[in-house]
Amino acid sequence: MVTGSAMSWTDDEGGEAGAARSGDSSRRLIEAAIEAFADRGYHATTTRDIATRVGLSPAALYVHFPSKQALLGEISVVGHEAALELVERSAAGPGGPLARLEAVIRAFTAWHAERHRVARVVHHELTALADADRHRVLDIRRKIEGVVRAQLSAGTASGEMDVPDPRAVARALLSLSVDVARWYDPRGSRTAEEIGELYADLAARMVVARPSREPGDPV
Amino acid sequence: MVTGSAMSWTDDEGGEAGAARSGDSSRRLIEAAIEAFADRGYHATTTRDIATRVGLSPAALYVHFPSKQALLGEISVVGHEAALELVERSAAGPGGPLARLEAVIRAFTAWHAERHRVARVVHHELTALADADRHRVLDIRRKIEGVVRAQLSAGTASGEMDVPDPRAVARALLSLSVDVARWYDPRGSRTAEEIGELYADLAARMVVARPSREPGDPV
Repeated sequence: MVTGSAMSWTDDEGGEAGAARSGDSSRRLIEAAIEAFADRGYHATTTRDIATRVGLSPAALYVHFPSKQALLGEISVVGHEAALELVERSAAGPGGPLARLEAVIRAFTAWHAERHRVARVVHHELTALADADRHRVLDIRRKIEGVVRAQLSAGTASGEMDVPDPRAVARALLSLSVDVARWYDPRGSRTAEEIGELYADLAARMVVARPSREPGDPV
Repeated sequence: MVTGSAMSWTDDEGGEAGAARSGDSSRRLIEAAIEAFADRGYHATTTRDIATRVGLSPAALYVHFPSKQALLGEISVVGHEAALELVERSAAGPGGPLARLEAVIRAFTAWHAERHRVARVVHHELTALADADRHRVLDIRRKIEGVVRAQLSAGTASGEMDVPDPRAVARALLSLSVDVARWYDPRGSRTAEEIGELYADLAARMVVARPSREPGDPV
């Protein structure tokens, strides 16, 4: 794992700090690798493809990253760390478990729309990661799922929610957000924020306790 | 598009008929292509990789399929046709719009778990399709989404459902099912049918009309 460029590529605001730490070439190589992996997949991409996109030789790439797999590891670990940070921050906001769950899903969904290219690489190339990176990433994924499950537990305990299978529902909620990265098109009619807002509402509907209703009752 | 093997590879029960129509080699090549594309992606797979998996030469593959892209087209078009057929059959079942929506999501989700390898290829390699196949596939996708939207419209008209943005909600419902193919592991603790059942319940929760409730009301 190469950690040089830190979070710069997932955060436009942090670009200068990232570049200062690790050099502009590392950052450009990471951005080029994201584009290449998202376009054609990890296995079909060569280090030459990546280097050529930024006008470097393959040899110059190896100055910054020891291998194509190290580049994927950097992208995947940093992407997961950014998502976890976002989720933890959202879960620490105001309100009860339902409001916090909505905040998590709102932010996590909008992130998957805005960063759909990074997110595709992060979610679709898990099996291509080196073992150490995959273990790190799986650990972060468990933490993200843990944050969601904590809201479901708290909401169930308070009576605000009714969640029959918290583990499966937590996975479904995250899965719904993750899949936005597969189909999101920035030229579409809805912004990332609008999709985040809609999905927060759908998440709330999925978990909120409902008055019991028999079939045939008026709705 | 080569249509020789028809639906045989998506339907274990139909295997004999499929083999009789198009020969065992076509069927085995399609199954090998699904495995190879699902493992490493379309772009990283060669016709040699596929042929070798079934003990044939690349030249023998071309007897059955003119190109790797034709194989992908066969897999993708037939996979989409199978999903549409399943969705239309489920939507024609008994009950009102909510029961029919639940039946659609139950079947569509279980299909994405059971056929997760085919489904991954079908959903993740859309951009690699030849134009004619891509247009056919996009047309089928619009029809599948149309079936779901028809239930949302009918349920809203009857007062059974409350769906603020039917187009976005239809996409979310299908997206939730589709993403099952990304993470489903047959060694996991839930069967395809159990996940289908849970997701049908979540779908109902997402769309069902709720009594209006003000914040602070008892739940």
